[in-house]
Amino acid sequence: MRKVAVVGLGHTRFMSDSPKSQVEMLSEASMDAISASNLTSKDIQAIFCGNVLGDFSEGQGMIQSYLADDIGCFNVPASRFEGACASATMAIRDAYMWVASGFYDIVLAGGVEKATAMGTSLATRTFAMFHHARYEYPAGFTFPAFFAMLTHLYSGRYGVPLEKLKEQMAMISVQSHHYGAKNPKAQFQKEITAEQVLNGFTVTTPLQLLDCCPFSDGAAAIVLASEEAARRLTDRPVYIAGVGQASSGKLSAQHKYLPRLRAREISVKQAYDMAGVGPEDIDVCELHDCFSIASIIAAEGLGFAEFGKGGELWEKGETRIGGKIPINISGGLKSKGHPIGATGASQVCEIVRQLRGELADEERQVGGARVGLVDTLGGDGVIVNLILRRE
Amino acid sequence: MRKVAVVGLGHTRFMSDSPKSQVEMLSEASMDAISASNLTSKDIQAIFCGNVLGDFSEGQGMIQSYLADDIGCFNVPASRFEGACASATMAIRDAYMWVASGFYDIVLAGGVEKATAMGTSLATRTFAMFHHARYEYPAGFTFPAFFAMLTHLYSGRYGVPLEKLKEQMAMISVQSHHYGAKNPKAQFQKEITAEQVLNGFTVTTPLQLLDCCPFSDGAAAIVLASEEAARRLTDRPVYIAGVGQASSGKLSAQHKYLPRLRAREISVKQAYDMAGVGPEDIDVCELHDCFSIASIIAAEGLGFAEFGKGGELWEKGETRIGGKIPINISGGLKSKGHPIGATGASQVCEIVRQLRGELADEERQVGGARVGLVDTLGGDGVIVNLILRRE
Repeated sequence: MRKVAVVGLGHTRFMSDSPKSQVEMLSEASMDAISASNLTSKDIQAIFCGNVLGDFSEGQGMIQSYLADDIGCFNVPASRFEGACASATMAIRDAYMWVASGFYDIVLAGGVEKATAMGTSLATRTFAMFHHARYEYPAGFTFPAFFAMLTHLYSGRYGVPLEKLKEQMAMISVQSHHYGAKNPKAQFQKEITAEQVLNGFTVTTPLQLLDCCPFSDGAAAIVLASEEAARRLTDRPVYIAGVGQASSGKLSAQHKYLPRLRAREISVKQAYDMAGVGPEDIDVCELHDCFSIASIIAAEGLGFAEFGKGGELWEKGETRIGGKIPINISGGLKSKGHPIGATGASQVCEIVRQLRGELADEERQVGGARVGLVDTLGGDGVIVNLILRRE
Repeated sequence: MRKVAVVGLGHTRFMSDSPKSQVEMLSEASMDAISASNLTSKDIQAIFCGNVLGDFSEGQGMIQSYLADDIGCFNVPASRFEGACASATMAIRDAYMWVASGFYDIVLAGGVEKATAMGTSLATRTFAMFHHARYEYPAGFTFPAFFAMLTHLYSGRYGVPLEKLKEQMAMISVQSHHYGAKNPKAQFQKEITAEQVLNGFTVTTPLQLLDCCPFSDGAAAIVLASEEAARRLTDRPVYIAGVGQASSGKLSAQHKYLPRLRAREISVKQAYDMAGVGPEDIDVCELHDCFSIASIIAAEGLGFAEFGKGGELWEKGETRIGGKIPINISGGLKSKGHPIGATGASQVCEIVRQLRGELADEERQVGGARVGLVDTLGGDGVIVNLILRRE
């Protein structure tokens, strides 16, 4: 199979109450990505989109067709992927294959979501459809409830007292807001303190409001090209060196493994093996911090810490620029925002910018970053991982 | 790229008010497909699913993960595709690429829908989300309205008087029910007459109730394998010889072309070129007859008749077994039923069975069929085409 590179990207500001429709937001990100790739719409051979709740939030299914129309990619193949929060990464992994195989040379991939107009309560209930509708939702599993349960499980299984764990979790949100404050695309551009996290509103014990990422509106897109096309288009290609994906099914099927997510361990191993690297080779990582406990669980599953020790990475500052493994220097889902169907594409955009060395102006550059890892979690167990590498 | 074969299939009965959930229906079809391929669940390396309205009808998103769990394909990559009625064919086209590229050897692809519990009115409104939510639905475009408009346009553009066109359309439904009556998987297994069509309830002028396919519950699945694996697994491999896909966008962007659907003409050309065949080489076709006028428009777009002459194919019996181009010998969406996210996979199952010569017992076999064409229309302009060929 051929090498595949990211040659350009586009990213709207993430926000609450965007005045734009989903198609408009994704069109904005897509046109920026096409333009940044020194291409026009006529060069795009296929489109791969992530989108999750658009049918509910706007009464709009099949956004990919209307996107193709709006950006002048009339009559190209356009597909929509749904894997809950991992939808955009799923779309990108798939787009990768259509170029790697030699079938297409240049494609567009991305994602979009518009969820905030529903309001948090309705959006939380609606998004609970991405639990099992028969066995989980009726038992009370919204996503805050699921991650609250994982927090208790984590505390019990690894013997980390809940108060200690909550302090570690607070430091994760503090770091995310620290970097998010510097990211002009972030939804929340303000610093917070551990005290604000710990003394805030309790969403569901033991999760405080500032342990939880927001609902967001926004879009992100990238252009993928074959190595040959990429060399024509840019002098800074970032290659997709490894891909992985796995689906765990319902929680009752995972109960012996939780709070570890086996799907992540399987998925990231695929990506590491394909790229010929291990966790020690990753210079910068964007992982799925929908709740602060999710960051700890992810960091361990990806191999950055022993199980039960993930929180110490943030405690010791190892996840900051200059630390052992800089994580979520974008601000993460917590501060940058989490437009569900766009999140994976946004993570890829951030890693590409890190590997290109474009973030010095934002005081968010990880010096000399050469290999980056993307980790996206969908629902209660879909994982997609991508490893990106510059030459 | 490698050759890819369908090695086994599974298909639930299509019906109204299935007592099963979507995951249960698709599990049934999938296990049948795996078993018919002389495989077990452990052999499946990835899953590709079409599903459209599950979030609304069952409050269940991300069915592919729960499917993977239920059929024992725990932790394989599982992706959901949404392209309205073309979702399953989109999933299969994508699955094809992952095998053709050499990345996987054996994968499962299919689709499912459970829409009837909503009732026809609510399902019609819900499915109208697969028009453009800002420009089309507010203008009154449900799908019956869209195809009624196309009928008027067709009559005017080609000078076929509306009464004449309605008679041709009635003969399409009569043929579909004729073959559907012989198909044990069909939702409606009864013959109808042209008089019943023409004198029935008017849904939206000029469409009568029996010009319209039903909403349905059901699932269909296939196993795809590389040529090498296929030769181990079956002595009757049916190869995917060509694939095509295109997206038209909203109706206002298509108005100069309608009632022709440009996406179909682009998509099927891709498939014909890739397979090295033309319409004259197709022995049997399953096309997207969501409304009887859609059959006429599709037959012309696929190259089986001149524009304005498609209805004559049915009038003259050319679309029956023994005719020039047997079409929808399954009973089509009209009689076999139309579980939206499953329809494309069901069409592929039918063509595979025709090419294997398995339908003599059902009195539906097209003698000596060697090359078959699948045509699926999603929303107002997504088309996916697949050409299948036995050796």
